Amino acid sequence: MRLTDDQFAYIFSHFKALSFKKGQAIISPGDEVDAEYFVLSGCLKTFYMNDELKMFILQFAMPNWWASDYNALIYQVKATITVDCVTDAQVLCLSSNDREKLCTELHPFERFLRLRTNKGYMAAQKRLLSFMNNDANGRYEELLKLSPELYNLVPKQLIAAYLGVSRETLSRLTYKRKGS
Amino acid sequence: MRLTDDQFAYIFSHFKALSFKKGQAIISPGDEVDAEYFVLSGCLKTFYMNDELKMFILQFAMPNWWASDYNALIYQVKATITVDCVTDAQVLCLSSNDREKLCTELHPFERFLRLRTNKGYMAAQKRLLSFMNNDANGRYEELLKLSPELYNLVPKQLIAAYLGVSRETLSRLTYKRKGS
Repeated sequence: MRLTDDQFAYIFSHFKALSFKKGQAIISPGDEVDAEYFVLSGCLKTFYMNDELKMFILQFAMPNWWASDYNALIYQVKATITVDCVTDAQVLCLSSNDREKLCTELHPFERFLRLRTNKGYMAAQKRLLSFMNNDANGRYEELLKLSPELYNLVPKQLIAAYLGVSRETLSRLTYKRKGS
Repeated sequence: MRLTDDQFAYIFSHFKALSFKKGQAIISPGDEVDAEYFVLSGCLKTFYMNDELKMFILQFAMPNWWASDYNALIYQVKATITVDCVTDAQVLCLSSNDREKLCTELHPFERFLRLRTNKGYMAAQKRLLSFMNNDANGRYEELLKLSPELYNLVPKQLIAAYLGVSRETLSRLTYKRKGS
């Protein structure tokens, strides 16, 4: 079930190219969320801030990754998380209307999204297990495997917020790895 | 995009009805995983056991829920988690081959699975956030909302293993709620 060049061009015509500056928010808590974003260049992050203003990073989105507040998107509720730019970024924006239209018109696009969502689900489950198991070292190794380039691109306190550890623990993990 | 009665009957003919006894394992670590299971009656649980034999419950699967080792299923690797029966259970088994065949033949079935996977993804993300945020109370309330019947059906130590808390903390959460 492959796309023809014409189908690909047709799908592509529904995406809107947008540019954002480092630090700029694409989605903020309370927003109506009506689109998802495919990263062309740069790096986004998706995070939740609790009542004590502690930041929990759900995801870094590098090129070829998708980001949104999927909970808000799927259940049509207001955003509870922030999506913003770790670096300057270029993204392709796909609205919910266009997503559903393309899924209805082109069965292969629906398959593509099903398989993409499978992978997102598994990534979330893997992180969940490592948090349940309190395995910061496992999370660190996983992140290195997933995107080694993140370590040069992203400030250390954001890496720590992703791993759910303090800056000190992150230093120990980094040191341990260098020593091994 | 609705299914006709004939399409529904056709889909249904690909599911195999199976019965399991309380405590019986459907998937064990190391297994080849080639199917997923739709629960008709009873309750399954999906869990990971770490090197210290501590159990982490990913999911309770009640009627109308699905269970499998999705990581093994999607990435075609050996199982790392167990799926077993909290109670006697009747399930419908769908093989990977039949799933992909049905998705190719019937676009509405592919849509159904895309939307189902969205929900699984969001449930995993919600649990992930509550573990990152160390919010046992939030997890408890969430579970009550999701399936209040679990509290009568499932032994307390399994509820505690799902919430990632000790039996003592679970008693405190239960007591607090009764008192509120």
